[in-house]
Amino acid sequence: MITLKGAEVSAKIKEQVLAMNGKLGGYVPTAAIVRIGERPDDLSYERNVMKRIAAYGMETKSYVYPADITEEEFFAEFQKINDDEAIDGILLFRPLPKYINEKRAEQMIRPEKDLDGICAVNTAKVFAGEKDGFAPCTAEAVIEVLKAFDIPMEGKRAVIVGRSMVVGRPLSMLMLKENVTVTVCHTKTKDLKAVCREADILVAAAGKAKMLDASFLKEGAVLIDVGINVDENGKLCGDVLWEGLEEKASAATPVPGGVGAVTTAVLAKHLAMAAERKVNR
Amino acid sequence: MITLKGAEVSAKIKEQVLAMNGKLGGYVPTAAIVRIGERPDDLSYERNVMKRIAAYGMETKSYVYPADITEEEFFAEFQKINDDEAIDGILLFRPLPKYINEKRAEQMIRPEKDLDGICAVNTAKVFAGEKDGFAPCTAEAVIEVLKAFDIPMEGKRAVIVGRSMVVGRPLSMLMLKENVTVTVCHTKTKDLKAVCREADILVAAAGKAKMLDASFLKEGAVLIDVGINVDENGKLCGDVLWEGLEEKASAATPVPGGVGAVTTAVLAKHLAMAAERKVNR
Repeated sequence: MITLKGAEVSAKIKEQVLAMNGKLGGYVPTAAIVRIGERPDDLSYERNVMKRIAAYGMETKSYVYPADITEEEFFAEFQKINDDEAIDGILLFRPLPKYINEKRAEQMIRPEKDLDGICAVNTAKVFAGEKDGFAPCTAEAVIEVLKAFDIPMEGKRAVIVGRSMVVGRPLSMLMLKENVTVTVCHTKTKDLKAVCREADILVAAAGKAKMLDASFLKEGAVLIDVGINVDENGKLCGDVLWEGLEEKASAATPVPGGVGAVTTAVLAKHLAMAAERKVNR
Repeated sequence: MITLKGAEVSAKIKEQVLAMNGKLGGYVPTAAIVRIGERPDDLSYERNVMKRIAAYGMETKSYVYPADITEEEFFAEFQKINDDEAIDGILLFRPLPKYINEKRAEQMIRPEKDLDGICAVNTAKVFAGEKDGFAPCTAEAVIEVLKAFDIPMEGKRAVIVGRSMVVGRPLSMLMLKENVTVTVCHTKTKDLKAVCREADILVAAAGKAKMLDASFLKEGAVLIDVGINVDENGKLCGDVLWEGLEEKASAATPVPGGVGAVTTAVLAKHLAMAAERKVNR
């Protein structure tokens, strides 16, 4: 079994990004990272994003607001960032506090700065299989992993477990674009194991620790584990039990160090794309 | 085998629409039908739409432009219709002539008047499974047929053949919302027959005359045929050969008289919904 290491994928994406940025005539793309409050998960992801973007030779600006900012204050600030010509892309941490209308932020963000594909224009482009939309980074990271390891997609059957707006749904559309025959499963799917065993490529994106194991795989299938969970011992783990995969899968992404390690690379690539489009406009 | 007649579905939708309109205090919803040129297919569909909307006690206004209208002239006219407070919903015939930017029309149409779900806001709502978006009418007609005949969807497996923006893709999302386990097939799908035979509900939406037949069905499956094609004898036919279905399917939509007969009823329902929201705003 090949272990599909995210680091190898990110290294390829880094090359692409450096090549794109090399054509910007010295312009350095800048991302705004917008956060309300101090959730530990956000802080950890933010550090990763900042490190990644810096490693790819680009810049970040942090905009941090107290957890008790009013809705009007926040949107006034957000509009300024949105309109700032010096900002090429925006990463907005969600969920926002409950008293702030998240839909309004999604409707407000400029499509060309929408690095994580949250606005309707980008959703519609992903849906239609258009090239110039930004897909949610995690969904796109799955495609990047498959491409980086030359895993053929056309005509293959993929089964995606999970129908979220950040992975399952957009990934189903991204895979259709790659000519995959796609099945989406969820909590109401009957005989999940039998359905999963139809997959040449099984994508676990349910967000439930070790809910699947090798018995859900067809012999020789490729496993992409998008889950990032904490197990009973406080250790990071995926949606799939790693033990036993070796004898069943032809390839699999580890957790940690798999898809999760590619998500911020995709975000950085989106930033480079946004800057490239701006500069060439 | 039960023949799933579109007329029975439309009759139920009509009742719903009349009930909705009865609460508008005498206000009569009005749809704008916008057409460029005189394509026979458009003319025939337009007649059906006008008849349907009239039969449901609502009004239509036709806006017809010559095939040689300039882009700027067209968009000036379209903007007027879009802004007209007396117009509750818009049906724009597509494809537009090649020299008119169809994307611009899609971006311009007000989401609340977008009866056939062509704008990004409605696409994103369908994608997210939100209630208040307008889905493309044909995709929604499939759901209406299944609901009208009390065909259970939750936990069932559906296979959709075809990945268009008007049926396959949006229908996959509408079915996810109904807790169906959905597979989308297309021209690159390998062993299409085997995949189709996994379906409890098979939806043929490839747009190719008689490309499927009873051998693609699992015993007792429900067949929804969205295709409207002309066969070698000049007769209307679906994507599935009707002969032989009787012994295999538990239920099937005929062509003509199946899904196609429901599409304009869904359009009329969207018009009533648009008016209801306007009046209650």
